[in-house]
Amino acid sequence: MVLTVADRAKVPPFIVMDVMSAAAAREAAGARVLHLEVGQPGTGLPRRAAEKLARLIETEPLGYTVALGIPALRERIARHYREAHGADVPPERILVTTGSSAAFQLAFLAAFPAGARVGLAAPGYPAYRHILSALGVEPVILPVGPETRYQPTVEVLEACGERLDGLIVASPSNPTGTVVPPDAMRALARSCEDRGIRLISDEIYHGIVYGEPAVSAAGLTETAIVINSFSKYYSMTGWRLGWLVAPPDMIRPLECLAQNMFISAPTLSQYAGLYAMDCTEELEANVARYAANRALLLEALPAAGFDRLAPADGAFYLYADVSRLTNDSPDFCRRMLAETGVAATPGLDFDAAQGHRFVRFSFAGSTEDMAEAARRLQAWAK
Amino acid sequence: MVLTVADRAKVPPFIVMDVMSAAAAREAAGARVLHLEVGQPGTGLPRRAAEKLARLIETEPLGYTVALGIPALRERIARHYREAHGADVPPERILVTTGSSAAFQLAFLAAFPAGARVGLAAPGYPAYRHILSALGVEPVILPVGPETRYQPTVEVLEACGERLDGLIVASPSNPTGTVVPPDAMRALARSCEDRGIRLISDEIYHGIVYGEPAVSAAGLTETAIVINSFSKYYSMTGWRLGWLVAPPDMIRPLECLAQNMFISAPTLSQYAGLYAMDCTEELEANVARYAANRALLLEALPAAGFDRLAPADGAFYLYADVSRLTNDSPDFCRRMLAETGVAATPGLDFDAAQGHRFVRFSFAGSTEDMAEAARRLQAWAK
Repeated sequence: MVLTVADRAKVPPFIVMDVMSAAAAREAAGARVLHLEVGQPGTGLPRRAAEKLARLIETEPLGYTVALGIPALRERIARHYREAHGADVPPERILVTTGSSAAFQLAFLAAFPAGARVGLAAPGYPAYRHILSALGVEPVILPVGPETRYQPTVEVLEACGERLDGLIVASPSNPTGTVVPPDAMRALARSCEDRGIRLISDEIYHGIVYGEPAVSAAGLTETAIVINSFSKYYSMTGWRLGWLVAPPDMIRPLECLAQNMFISAPTLSQYAGLYAMDCTEELEANVARYAANRALLLEALPAAGFDRLAPADGAFYLYADVSRLTNDSPDFCRRMLAETGVAATPGLDFDAAQGHRFVRFSFAGSTEDMAEAARRLQAWAK
Repeated sequence: MVLTVADRAKVPPFIVMDVMSAAAAREAAGARVLHLEVGQPGTGLPRRAAEKLARLIETEPLGYTVALGIPALRERIARHYREAHGADVPPERILVTTGSSAAFQLAFLAAFPAGARVGLAAPGYPAYRHILSALGVEPVILPVGPETRYQPTVEVLEACGERLDGLIVASPSNPTGTVVPPDAMRALARSCEDRGIRLISDEIYHGIVYGEPAVSAAGLTETAIVINSFSKYYSMTGWRLGWLVAPPDMIRPLECLAQNMFISAPTLSQYAGLYAMDCTEELEANVARYAANRALLLEALPAAGFDRLAPADGAFYLYADVSRLTNDSPDFCRRMLAETGVAATPGLDFDAAQGHRFVRFSFAGSTEDMAEAARRLQAWAK
């Protein structure tokens, strides 16, 4: 017999990794690279949280926590739902996770048997479909476009014509930044309940919006699984901390599963998250920076030929239809990096069918970098 | 349609959790509890590592790392294999993981398709079989006992009579602490290769031994997946950091899988692990404490009626056959806690068939606690 690698483990790599390697090589050679490819804040943990945490490291043994997460953090998250959404989400329904990554694994395992079918929009976060297929669940791509602001709607669900066991909605969305309006989210939640479709609401870009706040599915239905993260608004990517809100009948199975699969989320990160939730001033300053960056790029990018942009209501991305410039987004991104030093992500990472004609620009970095990137891209266009 | 919880997510809880809740209630009422139930060091991150780390929190943004882990840590781990085992394990084969928990998930997904069958010893770490079944892999219990030091052997494999796709070996073992001698490990590795069985070697208790060092499968074969952790020897449970050594053809699929399923291990924890690997003096002092605790209990427990103990060559557990005292280990542990304040883990967590007549004592705490526990148990026996 021959030892092999299981087919389910053969998930494709992120295409942006090639861009990142090329960017690193360019930097190693002394050139300045403007990182509009990475989906993470240029800032770190809020300063006041970092100060409190540094003391904790030297005084506490920081062993395992209970699998559901430290009670103070679960209560603080429940308070957040009251304050931000007027929603009554008891701490008992909250599970603290090792980033949204762990939350997706737990949610998919608990909600879907092998062979289930889960609808999700393209373009979308690639890990959804890769985790689903690694766990034996079939991703069903719902084709969405500018006409629905790149979001699934009840009409898209009805037109899909296939049996679905689940639906993933991300609002604000990565890569488009579009937000599902409250009425549409309510209609989706109701439609999912009526059809026995488990709604998974990815809310990891909540708090980063440029108009109305995004509505949380946690305030609309008890049957959805709501997933959130400390990586984006709380600027804590490397801390690997997130949470999920589970339906009441699902929290105990999720707890047992989490005990076995993760034991607990990193202890220090749980305290970091707890402290960060009180650093509103610094966090809102980050959002103000994103808003300034967005305004800058919304003015500059069209002048550089990127004039067909998804309406970025939230998150920190601009998703550009570049079909007038290229039919091969990975090649386009390589050339753009080589010729301008601006790194961006080929749309193929988010959409296998249409992504060859899209590019995602992240504006999570500094405003100075955005301005310099805009200058270079405009010069390149000429 | 009705929304349900998928059967594969219905894994049993750890039975010890009931003991821990009862212990917490007892402590809340003001009583002193001696924690011989928890499998984690009473100490935290080594002091010098904590000092270096506290500075890092306040100065670095600590974003995502690459999925394989920071290069300095992978190189440091490779150096560890050279120094501790004389084994040439290139950093390219090392994947840094979010605890051994993530390493098990990745290893099981990459090595075994749904429907595969993996052999493992009972008694053993319960999460093996629960993660396996959540991922659609069938755990095949290999009955082992004192005659093979509670470890699988080539003879046990041959006698099993069932087709196996994988074999998990844990040396030192949890809960028994027994170590597989070098010749037996070599024979197991060769037998697995001959039969096309993927060997998964759990080495998370390496470094904590009371006789000869445990041999690493990484020095014996390239086809095994070797899993290790910073939780035990490096005293970093709550940091959620581990690693695996993969066969050369498996590292790239594992990297892509890890990108999607975990993004990266916690960044700060990776630096903590790097620093901790140079804190040998403090870490060896921990091992000396475990050795003193073990000697104390090996003398005291038989006098308290626990006279049939597995030979604890390593780890920090004593696994006691209590069949002369009870046939219901959960009830026995409840009574022991209520009547003596000593918390221990019922064997049923580790062995569904025989665990009703075993109890695991952990001696990872302070020597003072061990001495007090011994006094109370001896008084109880009278």
